[in-house]
Amino acid sequence: MDRAVLVAALTNAATRLRIDSVRSTSEAGSGHPTTCCSAADLVAALFFAEMRFDPKDPHHPGSDRFVLSKGHAAPLLYAAWAESGAFPREEVLHLRELTSDLEGHPTPRLPFVDVATGSLGQGICAAVGSALNARRIKSDYRTYCLLGDGESAEGSVWEAAEIAAQDGLDNLCGITDVNGLGQSRATMWKHDLAQFARRWAAFGWHTITINGHDLNAVLDAYAEARATKGQPTMIVAGTVKGKGISFTEGKDGWHGKALKKGEELDKALAELNGQMVAAGNGIDLAAQIAKPTARPATPPAPKPVEPPAYTLGEQVATREAYGTALAKLGAADERVVALDADVKNSTFSDRFEKAFPERFYQNFIAEQVMVGSAMGLAARGAIPFPSTFAAFLTRAADFVRMMAISGVGVKLAGSHAGVSIGEDGPSQMALEDLGMFRAQPNIAVLYPSDGVSAEKLVAAMAYHPGPAYMRTSRPKTPVIYANDETFPIGGLKVLRQSGADVVTVVGAGVTVFEALKAHDELKAAGLQTRVIDLYSLAPIDKAGLIAAGRATQGRIITVEDHYPAGGIGDAVSEAVSEAGIKVERIAVREIPRSGKPEELLERYGISASHIVAAVKALK
Amino acid sequence: MDRAVLVAALTNAATRLRIDSVRSTSEAGSGHPTTCCSAADLVAALFFAEMRFDPKDPHHPGSDRFVLSKGHAAPLLYAAWAESGAFPREEVLHLRELTSDLEGHPTPRLPFVDVATGSLGQGICAAVGSALNARRIKSDYRTYCLLGDGESAEGSVWEAAEIAAQDGLDNLCGITDVNGLGQSRATMWKHDLAQFARRWAAFGWHTITINGHDLNAVLDAYAEARATKGQPTMIVAGTVKGKGISFTEGKDGWHGKALKKGEELDKALAELNGQMVAAGNGIDLAAQIAKPTARPATPPAPKPVEPPAYTLGEQVATREAYGTALAKLGAADERVVALDADVKNSTFSDRFEKAFPERFYQNFIAEQVMVGSAMGLAARGAIPFPSTFAAFLTRAADFVRMMAISGVGVKLAGSHAGVSIGEDGPSQMALEDLGMFRAQPNIAVLYPSDGVSAEKLVAAMAYHPGPAYMRTSRPKTPVIYANDETFPIGGLKVLRQSGADVVTVVGAGVTVFEALKAHDELKAAGLQTRVIDLYSLAPIDKAGLIAAGRATQGRIITVEDHYPAGGIGDAVSEAVSEAGIKVERIAVREIPRSGKPEELLERYGISASHIVAAVKALK
Repeated sequence: MDRAVLVAALTNAATRLRIDSVRSTSEAGSGHPTTCCSAADLVAALFFAEMRFDPKDPHHPGSDRFVLSKGHAAPLLYAAWAESGAFPREEVLHLRELTSDLEGHPTPRLPFVDVATGSLGQGICAAVGSALNARRIKSDYRTYCLLGDGESAEGSVWEAAEIAAQDGLDNLCGITDVNGLGQSRATMWKHDLAQFARRWAAFGWHTITINGHDLNAVLDAYAEARATKGQPTMIVAGTVKGKGISFTEGKDGWHGKALKKGEELDKALAELNGQMVAAGNGIDLAAQIAKPTARPATPPAPKPVEPPAYTLGEQVATREAYGTALAKLGAADERVVALDADVKNSTFSDRFEKAFPERFYQNFIAEQVMVGSAMGLAARGAIPFPSTFAAFLTRAADFVRMMAISGVGVKLAGSHAGVSIGEDGPSQMALEDLGMFRAQPNIAVLYPSDGVSAEKLVAAMAYHPGPAYMRTSRPKTPVIYANDETFPIGGLKVLRQSGADVVTVVGAGVTVFEALKAHDELKAAGLQTRVIDLYSLAPIDKAGLIAAGRATQGRIITVEDHYPAGGIGDAVSEAVSEAGIKVERIAVREIPRSGKPEELLERYGISASHIVAAVKALK
Repeated sequence: MDRAVLVAALTNAATRLRIDSVRSTSEAGSGHPTTCCSAADLVAALFFAEMRFDPKDPHHPGSDRFVLSKGHAAPLLYAAWAESGAFPREEVLHLRELTSDLEGHPTPRLPFVDVATGSLGQGICAAVGSALNARRIKSDYRTYCLLGDGESAEGSVWEAAEIAAQDGLDNLCGITDVNGLGQSRATMWKHDLAQFARRWAAFGWHTITINGHDLNAVLDAYAEARATKGQPTMIVAGTVKGKGISFTEGKDGWHGKALKKGEELDKALAELNGQMVAAGNGIDLAAQIAKPTARPATPPAPKPVEPPAYTLGEQVATREAYGTALAKLGAADERVVALDADVKNSTFSDRFEKAFPERFYQNFIAEQVMVGSAMGLAARGAIPFPSTFAAFLTRAADFVRMMAISGVGVKLAGSHAGVSIGEDGPSQMALEDLGMFRAQPNIAVLYPSDGVSAEKLVAAMAYHPGPAYMRTSRPKTPVIYANDETFPIGGLKVLRQSGADVVTVVGAGVTVFEALKAHDELKAAGLQTRVIDLYSLAPIDKAGLIAAGRATQGRIITVEDHYPAGGIGDAVSEAVSEAGIKVERIAVREIPRSGKPEELLERYGISASHIVAAVKALK
């Protein structure tokens, strides 16, 4: 198509995107129309003259991806997909209604959304994962990501910048919509485009600075990005917030505000309609969208995972079993990838790296991009296992939240849980991770106690639908299960029981062994206890716990290497609450210190001796 | 002192720091000696020729601050303070023992540590707060922060970089110890110092690139940093990990590994002792440490906070009351400061900014540095209130964890809690924040339901020792308390009760009003319910809850605009568990959608109708 004609057609497309953004938000009575207006030209050119995709098959594995990191511009995204023919235009008028998937911020309830956005600075991390995925599946699809200027203050953006450059992701193109206005005031750099370009260039990106409303410049920038080899490209686009509507253009105070239906909306629509150009009329840009060139090969069906090979009583840390299992899983299923944040020799994910270096992604010490890029990988068909110290997964807590909203199958593992890590001290001890992951309603939370259960659960979590988390421990613990034992997610193991049990003691991970020690000691004193290994906290075996509690005088004691809130005690308590079973929680109740693991278990009240005392104190 | 003599003396001091780092870690059997060795010259020059402080009075409000962002170099920090005379040298041999405050990573149990470090990328954020504090109290003290090169991949570092430059903090000097080796492999940039300098310069810092073992260059760099006006300085120092010990110098595989006592340690100590220079002997550098020049003025005693002025039934959102209260508190106490992440018009912290612009710190959209710099401010005597959407405080979850370990008095507020925010959708809804804050054993967690309780609790949290969190709501709710009502932290309010109550319904925030509606409806149907406003979740009024539960047939129903894990239900359940009271939890149990607030309360099961149904279903 002639460039002048194309630009005219894109001008009209962009104007329609503005119109739909304004109409839909006014109809909803809330939303961010002015944020949409600043980026409309950038998005129109991307969707209708650059990206290769099939509007009727947004999940096509070879199609270019678009991640709206500035998720509050959702109406613009919806308008663009409607304009492309993915769904009828008038549906945008149901924006933000309970019965519509066109939510206030995009979620993967919509087929054309890979990951939920709306918490700023996250989309670019997912875009890194999407770009890595193209390389993984040997596809030439490209990934585009639209960021806001205000959003660029988020540290996660610079984690993504670093990793994308480090990995030479020339299939990734970012666009920063520099409209100069944040929510509550002018942004840090207003329209000083050079500030943005300087930062991205320093981080190793090719940068292009343009007027984001000059469609010729926008088209040229996309072409230049596509031609750039060896490094990702950031297009820094100067724009005007509220562009196209005289009374919102560049005005503060219009962030997140819909135009009032009636005079205000009518005036805006009249102005926008007046911006249609005759030369662009009658051109069906949607029909001319380039389709994906090739469908990447379907990966081979997964093979059975090699079973564990331990002997009973053998000493192995669950973190080490995790590494072993991950390598075995990688051999069985080529969709499995692993991500690290420079602790692979502590989490034992280095065993996977040794076997499958091309499927191992190093994020250095940057947990947010590690989890965010895993989200992008998972959304595009990989089975990613990011792992680090469980304590440092809290660094990515907001990503975990958005992962849950996205429902993507990221399989996280956190090692070095609890005071049992010993001398490194509280900064390295995860004592709130179980609560963090249990909080989300759709994350499987697993906590194996020995090598066999750890290995079996790694395979189980890989094929469990949606996100999952495994907590592993630093100290070696004895293998207590046979290699052919099964560990369904949502189950538990009763390790000790008798007809005379006075209480059920529920542990997981290292505290299983404290409970077993306490059992033996109490038995010698004439008190029988039932001992449960609660290796699956979510989903949880409610029936099994209620049955155990009922069989043991309606009493359960939980013991965990974790703070009380949100952990094992709370999980058990909620599961058995309807049955009126009494739950006593033994947990870490103060900020711990450095010390030897066994000293700390004792000092912070979660060792066998404390279980013994609690059982003896029962009335 | 003659420069050559000084350098000789510093050479010996640095060697002693290496010796003590090696001895202490070998004695402990764990730790990071090689990390200490790379930075020993940088630290020796800083402590003994640059910083102004009193080793006997580390808390002196006018003294220069040193933040060890690379917290795993703790033995070096301890050695430097011992060398300065703060405590006897031989105490370092108790490193990592349960009975010693010389923990594996530094915590403020030690008087010379402002904030706990060891989760990387956080110290520099606290250092920003410390530098802002100097400006606040009109002191010329300077803040120094030592970072690792690997650590620089953390996004929080770049949030701090941006804010420090934006605020022109020329009283802040960072030092990046570029030793080229991470935990598990070479760092991203190895010894390419220009990569670091390029990034810091792009972010607006003055940069100086040096050989970090050339003491003359180190001294010159500190002097240049001190002379630099209008911008912070980053010294990029090339170093050798394990410096001074032939068999560890620049070798991979030595991270986090103590030298074995015996031959290995002896060889290292012999080599280090051999590096002592005669010209440096007999010079007491500790005696020559420059003392702080001035003691900043003590702030005036706080005045009483202006009381709330609402009329019963008046509609006011608790987030708005928060803003009102914050401004009143600011008028009463000049130590109070507020921090924002570009949502001040939503959290209403803009009311504080209008009144006290010089005590309002804008962090743009960067929650980690907002919380981290609040930690630095709190450690130096301010009473900081950082606030943003509660959902986005999860972005700073790891900072919250380290805040708890530090025990610093940061007062966080999170607005827009739960599904009651409505149309913006799940990415903007905090549904796990109560669990996140309750998880930490020493954070007060408050959740007011009306304007009066919100205002009173803002004042209460300011003077509560240690960290605190307040959850506020988006929708307007009626004022239900008189302006002179008191709200002690750790209390609750019984809003409805009779001698015939069949159950206690515990709500907080918006669900208090659902519980009140349900009460009226049930009463009309002949069922009496006790209604509690649990405005303080931590500490919690255990006795009050047990008494209520016992008086209402041993039954409690909790209702919360939050996921179940770690929230109100879990808090109540744990509080009453010993009394055998049955707790039924009504909470949000799936990922919500966009919709109208009242539609969402209904759809996700936490509205009055669901409480009514639950009460009617009681057997």
